[in-house]
Amino acid sequence: MNGVKEHKKPKLNIVKVGGQIIENQRMLNILMDRFSMMDGYKILVHGGGKRATEVEGKLGLKSRLYKGRRITSKESLDVVVMVYAGLVNKTIVAGLQANKCNAIGLCGADGNTILAHKRPVGEVDFGFVGDINKVDSTLITQLIKNNITPVFCALTHDGDGQLLNTNADTIASELAIDLSNIFEVSLLYCFEKKGVLKNIEEADSIIPKIDRESYNQLLENRVIGEGMLPKLHNSFNALEAGVRRVCIGDIGMLGQDAEEFTTITL
Amino acid sequence: MNGVKEHKKPKLNIVKVGGQIIENQRMLNILMDRFSMMDGYKILVHGGGKRATEVEGKLGLKSRLYKGRRITSKESLDVVVMVYAGLVNKTIVAGLQANKCNAIGLCGADGNTILAHKRPVGEVDFGFVGDINKVDSTLITQLIKNNITPVFCALTHDGDGQLLNTNADTIASELAIDLSNIFEVSLLYCFEKKGVLKNIEEADSIIPKIDRESYNQLLENRVIGEGMLPKLHNSFNALEAGVRRVCIGDIGMLGQDAEEFTTITL
Repeated sequence: MNGVKEHKKPKLNIVKVGGQIIENQRMLNILMDRFSMMDGYKILVHGGGKRATEVEGKLGLKSRLYKGRRITSKESLDVVVMVYAGLVNKTIVAGLQANKCNAIGLCGADGNTILAHKRPVGEVDFGFVGDINKVDSTLITQLIKNNITPVFCALTHDGDGQLLNTNADTIASELAIDLSNIFEVSLLYCFEKKGVLKNIEEADSIIPKIDRESYNQLLENRVIGEGMLPKLHNSFNALEAGVRRVCIGDIGMLGQDAEEFTTITL
Repeated sequence: MNGVKEHKKPKLNIVKVGGQIIENQRMLNILMDRFSMMDGYKILVHGGGKRATEVEGKLGLKSRLYKGRRITSKESLDVVVMVYAGLVNKTIVAGLQANKCNAIGLCGADGNTILAHKRPVGEVDFGFVGDINKVDSTLITQLIKNNITPVFCALTHDGDGQLLNTNADTIASELAIDLSNIFEVSLLYCFEKKGVLKNIEEADSIIPKIDRESYNQLLENRVIGEGMLPKLHNSFNALEAGVRRVCIGDIGMLGQDAEEFTTITL
């Protein structure tokens, strides 16, 4: 955060929507409705892993996951591209248009917005999975300022013709970081739970605020589930790189009547 | 054509690429290379019917065609959306980016560019097939003028959340017509043959020029195959509505060394 004329920057909400919301048509409709009603500049980011697993199953392919992350073979990449950039992305775009939100569906290859490299083979060969090198938000900024709302799916490219499967949480935080040069960015991780929970069994045990210190404490006490760790890691990264606000919660977080959710602070 | 300052309009090439080129990786690479090298403003339009049929097959769905046109059930629409807007579109976008052509993939729902309605049930129920109501080229024009190259797949939407499968030749001609208000548009139908042929068995029997009169003659003499009729119909439509130039030919048509092809005139 450079602080120069910080207060003059227009506000931008980046909403990452989780897989369990996308899978559920009723939830997805509510999400699209709430998102459309949000004032001001905004971006939606989504994955679609569960749907991809379903299509892989129908095609007789076996989905291979390692610690919850997809190992992306050539065949698996084709499915991911079809499902993320095709079915899920365009269904959301058409749904937002019906709500009078002028959306445009994008992946990282479009307008060369997100350049990545294939993850080097280490303990595991993740296949066609991309780690982000660089966000170029020129096009995104043009679109936003023309009141067109980008809807990003979880794909990037390597600049050499190869599409790559990339974690949607990370895409959201990297977009948030780059766009913080121009906008005052709020990054909202929207999923099926009301926030980060003290006890995963108790839906209402929301931790209202997590900072670095309490995060370390929560880690020590093993309160935070493994699935939540990358999201929190991305959150702190984003805040350190100039993103104004990071929240984790359910769809309620997007409404005027925002109830409880978790706010991450440094 | 209103003729007012017609000569001041910037040039725009709209290239529709046929299914047999898309299917063939070698041909597709040449197409992307040639297209990237074309000077000035340009748009690429594609379908992907054969690939969709292949994926339908793998999913155990039966493709149903009526006079060469796909009957689009709900399941079939999902496949078409996955293949057109996902696999084919993003593969082309990433390929063009590798050639330093700053492409962006779009369907008619993106930026609300192409509004259509579900074709009424007549002799045949085509299912989720859309006939175009209206092209809004605001976004397309913004993109083009920022030197971003739109790549359109053959999908539209009804403004009410429904995606629709729409003939790619028609999308190309409707885009060409609307954009003729701002640009001097050349519409290039690029497919596997060198042009409209006198004799389908002879690859070199290209008819260099077809106008309304010779078209009627060719029809009478049954020279033109059924598959070519909609393309020619779209061509005359486009010319009558202000498109400057319509040509039909193979990839060679896109190069500096353009050999033979068919030019359609009024």
